[in-house]
Amino acid sequence: MDFIGKLLHTSRKNKSLLCIGLDPDPELMPRVGILEFNKAIIDTTCDLVCAYKPNLAFYEALGIAGLTILEKTIEHIPGDIPIIGDAKRGDIGNTAKAYAKALFSTFGFDAATVNPYLGFDSIEPFISYRDKGVFILCRTSNKGASDFQDLPCLSGFPLYEVVAQKAKQWNAYGNIGLVVGATYPEELRKVRSICPEMCLLIPGIGAQGGDLASAVGYGVDAQGEKAIIAISRQILYASKERDFAQAARNRAEKIRNQINEYRNKGR
Amino acid sequence: MDFIGKLLHTSRKNKSLLCIGLDPDPELMPRVGILEFNKAIIDTTCDLVCAYKPNLAFYEALGIAGLTILEKTIEHIPGDIPIIGDAKRGDIGNTAKAYAKALFSTFGFDAATVNPYLGFDSIEPFISYRDKGVFILCRTSNKGASDFQDLPCLSGFPLYEVVAQKAKQWNAYGNIGLVVGATYPEELRKVRSICPEMCLLIPGIGAQGGDLASAVGYGVDAQGEKAIIAISRQILYASKERDFAQAARNRAEKIRNQINEYRNKGR
Repeated sequence: MDFIGKLLHTSRKNKSLLCIGLDPDPELMPRVGILEFNKAIIDTTCDLVCAYKPNLAFYEALGIAGLTILEKTIEHIPGDIPIIGDAKRGDIGNTAKAYAKALFSTFGFDAATVNPYLGFDSIEPFISYRDKGVFILCRTSNKGASDFQDLPCLSGFPLYEVVAQKAKQWNAYGNIGLVVGATYPEELRKVRSICPEMCLLIPGIGAQGGDLASAVGYGVDAQGEKAIIAISRQILYASKERDFAQAARNRAEKIRNQINEYRNKGR
Repeated sequence: MDFIGKLLHTSRKNKSLLCIGLDPDPELMPRVGILEFNKAIIDTTCDLVCAYKPNLAFYEALGIAGLTILEKTIEHIPGDIPIIGDAKRGDIGNTAKAYAKALFSTFGFDAATVNPYLGFDSIEPFISYRDKGVFILCRTSNKGASDFQDLPCLSGFPLYEVVAQKAKQWNAYGNIGLVVGATYPEELRKVRSICPEMCLLIPGIGAQGGDLASAVGYGVDAQGEKAIIAISRQILYASKERDFAQAARNRAEKIRNQINEYRNKGR
């Protein structure tokens, strides 16, 4: 099954648009090993999510040991739940080919995030894995996003809209999606209107302050699907005590249900 | 010593602006182990370079085993030669902090390449390591670079020039450099005129077809320094036979000397 098929299958089965970001931060975590932490989070939330999304930075920061934990975390995730490798890679053609191999073949992710700054030949090696999902950064959730992504271009559109237009044009295999932060609802609405059928990966809820109602309302497609609401810290660190996994489950369940309420309201 | 100090020291000692990209590609390599290959290249060229630049993609493609080779390759490089981690990372603040830790503290690189698309808060965690070098992608060497980097902005400047202007503005600690491909000499000249004192990392010579004379002529600062000419395939794969290391040395020496000729011509 390809990425979109796998995503929709699990999203429908678990009635969920929630994706948990597996971003273990030693400064915020309970006193427990990282692999043990990830396994506990996965075990208690795997019936509540549409996907998991480990961000590679948190594993790379721990070196070889961290990347070994990442491998074991991936192995531990039930086979029908898609895993998005949040790596934001971007490099020239032959190097991008090596990155695509690393993410899709070596680590075995079902999808990956990529950076558009280097243009089409940096993205092509990813999309040529036709059964994998490729999420191109469009309008990110952080403050600095405005430095370049909002720059008005001569064409009259800000850069992030040009990226969305190009992504649509490049989507020959139907496996491209876009990353759009929940912290900027107007921009999200705009991107959804440019790409009505694309899968959107939406971070920025919780610790970053994005509004869940508008993220869901503006993010879903006409069927109320294809929006992946990615939340990390708000769920992972619901408790720093021994009950952390149950606390994470409770928080995840509440958010999953809230998302569904907003989904139904919009219909 | 900080990155710039280390770079100038080795560049002057070895009379070289040449940086060898340690990008082992199993499809192009002689029949030898990757670590053995890297060590042989380093041993035969370390008096001819100003820096080495491993691109992480080629190691990540091989998984944990590849990253272990990367660690051992870094260990093998003589201590006074700066090592640039070509990773092109870019992520939001707290994640960028983890990437900066991975590259500067865990792997121990002297400098790293970063992607500007996410704006200042994605770059700040890198530059706050004040003794490390941070090369921001500006005008890359690939064909797809024109998709977004050349987009004319309302301010009248193409995006890559806006990036160069911002980089100059952000350079409070003097440790920011820019990546500008040799394949676009006019753009290189333009960037050098915007940032006359910044260190420029210049890939695109050799396999990518950039012209060495203009890369040197337009790339160096007023003192004929602070241009890092990064070459990978043309040197690494000078021979696929048992003499590969000697062939790489011969090629590197020839290019190092050519660069110096062009350097003197411009003075």
